[in-house]
Amino acid sequence: MTIKAVVFDAYGTLYDVQSVADVTDNAFPGYGDIITQVWRIKQLEYSWLRSLMQRYEDFSVITRDSLAYTLRILGLTYDESVFERIMEKYLHLDLYPDASAALAALRGRKLAILSNGSTDMLNALARNSGLDRVLDATISIDSKRVFKPSPAAYTLIEEKLGVQPAEVLFVSSNPWDACGAKTFGLNVAWIERVTPEAMALACVKSDLVPPLTMFKAVRMQMDELGVEPDHRIRMLSDLPKVVALYES
Amino acid sequence: MTIKAVVFDAYGTLYDVQSVADVTDNAFPGYGDIITQVWRIKQLEYSWLRSLMQRYEDFSVITRDSLAYTLRILGLTYDESVFERIMEKYLHLDLYPDASAALAALRGRKLAILSNGSTDMLNALARNSGLDRVLDATISIDSKRVFKPSPAAYTLIEEKLGVQPAEVLFVSSNPWDACGAKTFGLNVAWIERVTPEAMALACVKSDLVPPLTMFKAVRMQMDELGVEPDHRIRMLSDLPKVVALYES
Repeated sequence: MTIKAVVFDAYGTLYDVQSVADVTDNAFPGYGDIITQVWRIKQLEYSWLRSLMQRYEDFSVITRDSLAYTLRILGLTYDESVFERIMEKYLHLDLYPDASAALAALRGRKLAILSNGSTDMLNALARNSGLDRVLDATISIDSKRVFKPSPAAYTLIEEKLGVQPAEVLFVSSNPWDACGAKTFGLNVAWIERVTPEAMALACVKSDLVPPLTMFKAVRMQMDELGVEPDHRIRMLSDLPKVVALYES
Repeated sequence: MTIKAVVFDAYGTLYDVQSVADVTDNAFPGYGDIITQVWRIKQLEYSWLRSLMQRYEDFSVITRDSLAYTLRILGLTYDESVFERIMEKYLHLDLYPDASAALAALRGRKLAILSNGSTDMLNALARNSGLDRVLDATISIDSKRVFKPSPAAYTLIEEKLGVQPAEVLFVSSNPWDACGAKTFGLNVAWIERVTPEAMALACVKSDLVPPLTMFKAVRMQMDELGVEPDHRIRMLSDLPKVVALYES
């Protein structure tokens, strides 16, 4: 069975959500990192909670709400233009440095994004980063009104690309997304961006644990959800090797 | 409309999940607090993710898996007996100091727990803390195989107690639980255990933000989920006043 489509998660996988830190630090000097970390945790939580509560709102609403929460719990006041400037960065996130080359190396197969982002957010992101020129599709879960890792979200790959799950390689750095995709039946490559060794080293003594490292750590190590991705890679440029494994 | 039943969340509401910190610190000196915080965040995440993934496992499995994850990302090694000693504490959590008196003051109404905990965990907890003598029911969501805040979980109150949602006061310190219960249609009192003022004070300077305070903060302030609880209280002993509001 060969891989006919490589489908990527967007936020944290092709696009660096940490790249909002410059804008948040510019708006609130000294708070850039903590805003970035808390914002991301709450953005994820709200996507799962609203799915479970059956009160779907699209990812742009959730991204605004989680930013508002973050600024509130940090006791920060702001005017509307500052808030909008931070939100605007979400449409101009930095690509990971190896993203464009990795996509180019995979040419010949169908290439797509499947993301919790709304259609508008994803189209803007792909256009602003130039990925619209190399992707066959930018698929938002919003037509299903439920977020990943719900199985309903992953069904969109076959619906939109006409490729069966066994012929898809799904790529994500988000452990919960890799687990959800694997549970659904896709081939899954998980990008391990923070190694256990680096994490363990940072945590040798509890009084040395930097809070921001821990906030990242709780999201970036493989979860204990009773399922494992098929492949663990360190960077997007490892993907051609993974795809080649299916050729033999 | 009077309140015929007062139904409590268990973990974080009647029982102090932070009370595992002594045991975790005893097992891993210096790491007690960070284990406690990361464990709780992952325990919640796994309950939501497994619900969304449609891969339900009961809360005892999730509690074990999230503890295993926590120790792994902290780079801690341990033998089985240490792990079991920590798990055992989850069946002997401390009651909040005002829990027993608050329950006594509400006598005459149906009193129950509705928790994500498994039946076995909740029965042990109620027995070990003596609450089995004052509660009319200890309701686990496990017959529904989906966790709060799914609406299916909250339907169990009417099923088990025979009291309609409009005649129930649901009490939780967990913002996501308060929002889920309110969305479902219960009357909801949210216990605000960490005030915004205390949090803002702790966060005046970002270099002064203690990591554990932030870990608690991201869980303990009211969420932005498009719904608000009916009542905000500071402690369980405020409940008789809330119930009295419905008598007039």
